[in-house]
Amino acid sequence: MRKESRWIRWIKWIVIVTVLFVLGFCIGWFAKPSNTQNHTDSSHYLKDFLEEMKADKIREHLRKFTQLPHLAGTEQNLKYAEQIMKEWQMFGIDSVEMVPYDVLLSYPNESQPNYISIVDHLGNEVFNTSLAEPVPQGYEDISNIVPPYSAFSAKGQPEGDLVYVNYGRTEDFSQLQREMGINVTGKIVIVRYGKIFRGNKVKNAVLAGAKGIIMFSDPADYWADGIQPYPDGWNLPGRGVQRGNVLNLNGAGDPLTPGYPAKEYTYRVSPEDGVGLPNIPVHPIGFHDAFRLLNNMGGEIPPNNWKGALNVSYRIGPGFTDEFKSQKVRMNIHTNNQVTRIYNVIGKIRGAQEPDRYVILGGHRDAWVFGGIDPMSGAAVVHETVRSAGRLLSTGWRPRRTIIFASWDAEEFGLLGSTEWAEDNARLLQERAVAYINADSAIEGMYTLRVDCTPSLHTLVYDITKQIPSPEGGEEGVSLYESWHKRDNWTNDRDAPRISKLGSGSDFEAYFIRLGIASGRARYTKNTKTERYSSYPVYHSVYETFEIVEKFYDPSFKRLQAVAQVRGALIFLLADSQLLPLDVNEYADSLRKYAQSIAQLAQKNLVEMEMYKVSFDSLFSAVENFTVAARDFHERLQTLNKADPLQLRIMNDQLMYLERAFIDPLGLPGRPFYRHVIFAPSSHNKYAGESFPGIYDALFDIQNSADPAKAWEEVKRQISIAAFTVHAAAMTLTPPA
Amino acid sequence: MRKESRWIRWIKWIVIVTVLFVLGFCIGWFAKPSNTQNHTDSSHYLKDFLEEMKADKIREHLRKFTQLPHLAGTEQNLKYAEQIMKEWQMFGIDSVEMVPYDVLLSYPNESQPNYISIVDHLGNEVFNTSLAEPVPQGYEDISNIVPPYSAFSAKGQPEGDLVYVNYGRTEDFSQLQREMGINVTGKIVIVRYGKIFRGNKVKNAVLAGAKGIIMFSDPADYWADGIQPYPDGWNLPGRGVQRGNVLNLNGAGDPLTPGYPAKEYTYRVSPEDGVGLPNIPVHPIGFHDAFRLLNNMGGEIPPNNWKGALNVSYRIGPGFTDEFKSQKVRMNIHTNNQVTRIYNVIGKIRGAQEPDRYVILGGHRDAWVFGGIDPMSGAAVVHETVRSAGRLLSTGWRPRRTIIFASWDAEEFGLLGSTEWAEDNARLLQERAVAYINADSAIEGMYTLRVDCTPSLHTLVYDITKQIPSPEGGEEGVSLYESWHKRDNWTNDRDAPRISKLGSGSDFEAYFIRLGIASGRARYTKNTKTERYSSYPVYHSVYETFEIVEKFYDPSFKRLQAVAQVRGALIFLLADSQLLPLDVNEYADSLRKYAQSIAQLAQKNLVEMEMYKVSFDSLFSAVENFTVAARDFHERLQTLNKADPLQLRIMNDQLMYLERAFIDPLGLPGRPFYRHVIFAPSSHNKYAGESFPGIYDALFDIQNSADPAKAWEEVKRQISIAAFTVHAAAMTLTPPA
Repeated sequence: MRKESRWIRWIKWIVIVTVLFVLGFCIGWFAKPSNTQNHTDSSHYLKDFLEEMKADKIREHLRKFTQLPHLAGTEQNLKYAEQIMKEWQMFGIDSVEMVPYDVLLSYPNESQPNYISIVDHLGNEVFNTSLAEPVPQGYEDISNIVPPYSAFSAKGQPEGDLVYVNYGRTEDFSQLQREMGINVTGKIVIVRYGKIFRGNKVKNAVLAGAKGIIMFSDPADYWADGIQPYPDGWNLPGRGVQRGNVLNLNGAGDPLTPGYPAKEYTYRVSPEDGVGLPNIPVHPIGFHDAFRLLNNMGGEIPPNNWKGALNVSYRIGPGFTDEFKSQKVRMNIHTNNQVTRIYNVIGKIRGAQEPDRYVILGGHRDAWVFGGIDPMSGAAVVHETVRSAGRLLSTGWRPRRTIIFASWDAEEFGLLGSTEWAEDNARLLQERAVAYINADSAIEGMYTLRVDCTPSLHTLVYDITKQIPSPEGGEEGVSLYESWHKRDNWTNDRDAPRISKLGSGSDFEAYFIRLGIASGRARYTKNTKTERYSSYPVYHSVYETFEIVEKFYDPSFKRLQAVAQVRGALIFLLADSQLLPLDVNEYADSLRKYAQSIAQLAQKNLVEMEMYKVSFDSLFSAVENFTVAARDFHERLQTLNKADPLQLRIMNDQLMYLERAFIDPLGLPGRPFYRHVIFAPSSHNKYAGESFPGIYDALFDIQNSADPAKAWEEVKRQISIAAFTVHAAAMTLTPPA
Repeated sequence: MRKESRWIRWIKWIVIVTVLFVLGFCIGWFAKPSNTQNHTDSSHYLKDFLEEMKADKIREHLRKFTQLPHLAGTEQNLKYAEQIMKEWQMFGIDSVEMVPYDVLLSYPNESQPNYISIVDHLGNEVFNTSLAEPVPQGYEDISNIVPPYSAFSAKGQPEGDLVYVNYGRTEDFSQLQREMGINVTGKIVIVRYGKIFRGNKVKNAVLAGAKGIIMFSDPADYWADGIQPYPDGWNLPGRGVQRGNVLNLNGAGDPLTPGYPAKEYTYRVSPEDGVGLPNIPVHPIGFHDAFRLLNNMGGEIPPNNWKGALNVSYRIGPGFTDEFKSQKVRMNIHTNNQVTRIYNVIGKIRGAQEPDRYVILGGHRDAWVFGGIDPMSGAAVVHETVRSAGRLLSTGWRPRRTIIFASWDAEEFGLLGSTEWAEDNARLLQERAVAYINADSAIEGMYTLRVDCTPSLHTLVYDITKQIPSPEGGEEGVSLYESWHKRDNWTNDRDAPRISKLGSGSDFEAYFIRLGIASGRARYTKNTKTERYSSYPVYHSVYETFEIVEKFYDPSFKRLQAVAQVRGALIFLLADSQLLPLDVNEYADSLRKYAQSIAQLAQKNLVEMEMYKVSFDSLFSAVENFTVAARDFHERLQTLNKADPLQLRIMNDQLMYLERAFIDPLGLPGRPFYRHVIFAPSSHNKYAGESFPGIYDALFDIQNSADPAKAWEEVKRQISIAAFTVHAAAMTLTPPA
């Protein structure tokens, strides 16, 4: 007994000792603060974050910020900035500041209205275009509605014969001059809006020698069949007009301070040397007035693809028919350029582990009038995102990286607010920015989601949209991904929702094309297969009201909510994932497609390609090299020890800097601020994102070149630059040493 | 008793439990691997590393690599590259590779020698300059000694009158034209070497309209008093000639592939469009031949500061005295440009904790002939550094960061090897390079140390030199710092050894001025107060042999050893220190000095400054802002938790990227590859490092401008750019969020 008892006591002792030791060990182990980030499972935070964004709240925000016109540089736009700043502070994010710049803006002269006349042989004005759009119901007492104008138009009163130049594209002018034999030197051209950015139309008109340019919205391009004009539907009324700037900035920002932020001490070039300012008068009109100008035009009847939907024959001129031969057209333009203070609102949530890594959600606040769609549908979404993020912060969440929210000013005047801030912060952004998500208009149609982004974001966009419900009626339980996929499948080759390339025309430009920060944008869109009009009918008119969204585009505000969730989830996961959710293999796949497609484009000139020894081999070889590097990188990611903060940071840095690797510091030919070798707008249309834009433009120029040997040399040079850039980008994915 | 016993038992139990728990806790605590790097005390490794570098070994390396001429692009230079690669591999560093580029080089035509003649009125050559330098003793049988020539000279046989243009500086030509009333259009100019880079002389001659340029070494500039010519001393013999390229690349690298690496697939511009190629013949001669050309010259006697030390009157011409009036000078230049393969050798030691951070030690290998001083005194030092690093690796050391050793090719032809590699690796270097230490000639005099570096390296240089012994005889126990300090105190304001600004003319250019990587160089130098000659007398002649170093410059090889230790310690501490040894306060101090000094320069034109409203206030305010940011940053460094690898990395990144912040992607005016706003050579002399070079050049141009209002506008623009850049750099030092 005694012996057993001793045995038992010994065992007891051993058990106790062991238990205590293990207990102590475990407590010691777990009590020690770990240097690896306590990566709390962020998925429940993501869920909370997305669910907190409410349709009704977005409606409230939209209502609040569309009461009054708030053109850039006006008092009301500053008031909204102050209100946004105050509310973001209340939402509880870490800091909010107002960041002003003094940039060149452009306004109509209040005492001398802009208009276009038909004048008789005595110089009497026998017809004048409207001075303003009829104000929509409920807004009759509102002042400060800027009349339709082309911002940055030259002043002047040119008088002459009209020539109709279709969309004013390079190919339109070329057809006009070569096939139709019409010289527009000294003429006033009339051009329909659509297809390309209006600034490109103006540039083409200037190059062709025109002394003035009139732009109009043709029903063929701004009218949806079976839809009533506003307020009974969402079509553009006959007297509605599209405003807009007519600059050719190519990413320069403020025309007077290219490359540098427009601060008080900044040197400004003289107004004559300002970047991208047209030197002829420009003015926009609606189709009601356009009918009057086109109706009496003489000259040839153009081919069918030059004809719009007005009840006129679209004769190209020059001038009027014999009956009205003595009548001329006179433009009366008194618009002034002036340096004006603008205000960005910048809000921040400090990153917990990597405060020096930035994820940016930015969109503009300034509007031509009320901005019901453009931009406030987007700004309301950002506002709700900030509110939700503030709520999450108050529950103890803090993202791994810093999140920056931006309410940009003066986007409508050439992306000025966003570009000046990018110039101001270029060094920080270059070293630290992980991604930029753009938040312009959140809706331009009622059909499905539209996403344009850099290829490395494809996978994240798909993952996210699978977690967000479809906003469409009758699609309960269907994900946004499925809803989108069903409506817009990519191609026959790829069974997934279509994602497009980024072009330009919104505030991501400086971040993506100048600085090389991975970027994307998401909005709700129309059915591009059946709805041919550019943007949406009331675009940049006074009819972009809160009501048009509430009555037609998104009565439940669920579409805007879905867009808020997409944009929100993008910044959430980019900011909070331990490993950056950027997919290098997708970039490789896209590069391969782009290389094939640009080579195919070139092969239209097979004979010349052989004559001038033009080969795409170096580009294909570079893409192959990139593909291997991306695959190897992706494999190494699988074995990454995420508990080692330095190893994790090193690979995240490689992911972050991949987009930067496509930047050529020398810029694209003649466009020093467009520096992305893979993505930039074509020189012929700011809206269209082209892949390998340097090669694309060089190929385009061959058609018009007087010296084909030299033009093909430029193609070869551009292929070499593209090949080098892709090789260089591949190198950034290999092990760093 | 029993009660007490129970008490005691309880206490026993409690003690046992506590002890076991604490034991377990402690074991648990310490058993858990820490993520903070086991930062072994690197100081004993540094000591081993420095002590391992031996004078005798450096002598051996120098002897080995100066046996044969090894001009860039020749077989022998490839052989040395292969030998260096093999030996670095044997030394035990992680990897060594050969990296080729195909760049434009320039060689004399072997069948048609270059020379200059005096021709009589019948066209007979009555005097010809030497075709080669007398070969030094012991080298008589050596082939492939390239005769003296000006690399990249245009071909041609211009004939005409000589004009003597002193040093060929902008101010010399200006004095010639304005004060002396001499027009050099259509003349051949003769210019003495010295003061400025020879390429600038050629550019000035071209701008002035000359049709040829002859350069000579005047004893006033290449002769030390009381010293015998080589081989009895280290002075330049009368028939010795300085070779050298005469390009104006402004950092472009290979003239045919500016901005991109010269790979096989790279597009090359046509030779006529090559960057920086002179369009007139250029040829160098010694003072023996120069005497013959100058002796008969007619025209005015120039001011004393135009006179050299030859026994001639330095008349400026044009042409000869009456007696020889009918004689002309004819240049016979047949030098060819040709695309040629060159080879860099790149060795690496992988960093243990931060393999994606690079510290580079690079210097060139190619030489005009033997390269006894330039560059092999430097290359021998690099070789010994690699050997010592290999030894240290074998003892278990591995640096925190990656070290890259480079043996550059074709430096003599315009820094081509280093620039092409920088272009090839620009993205990696931009994101990852911590510092670049240059290793050209390690000795150019026998007096003391010379260091040129970025301000943030000042403190490290002082710290290092305090740990290295003086190499001077009779200075046992004296540190290099003290020895240097005694000989070259900075100024009355600062009691420390002088450190100078980086100019250009060696391989750090692309790294520092284009990419913005903190850079420095160190070598042994002459007493600049008493020795007025540029570089050293035999510079770029055949007399740069192993023997000139062994007999005169450094018989004990202790000076080269000291330079090896300085360069070695720099890369060691930059690569291995936990916290980067870069001093932001020193940058602030330097910026303040530079701002004061450029403002002072401007104030020579006080009246005009007031007339054109030129103010330096914005620059001073930016510098003040930078100073505060630097001080605050430095204070935060003191409280940094170095055990947190992410916090450490974040601050190190701020230190690393500070130099990058001074880069303006738009480049300096007309010089797209010079992008450093604080440091670049003046447009008028590649060798001279100027601070605020944009402002400096704009002020310089005022003197020669026909439109002063416009010239002052450029000054204002440059001040604004400088102020913005300094503000932007300050921002990078503030807390990241």
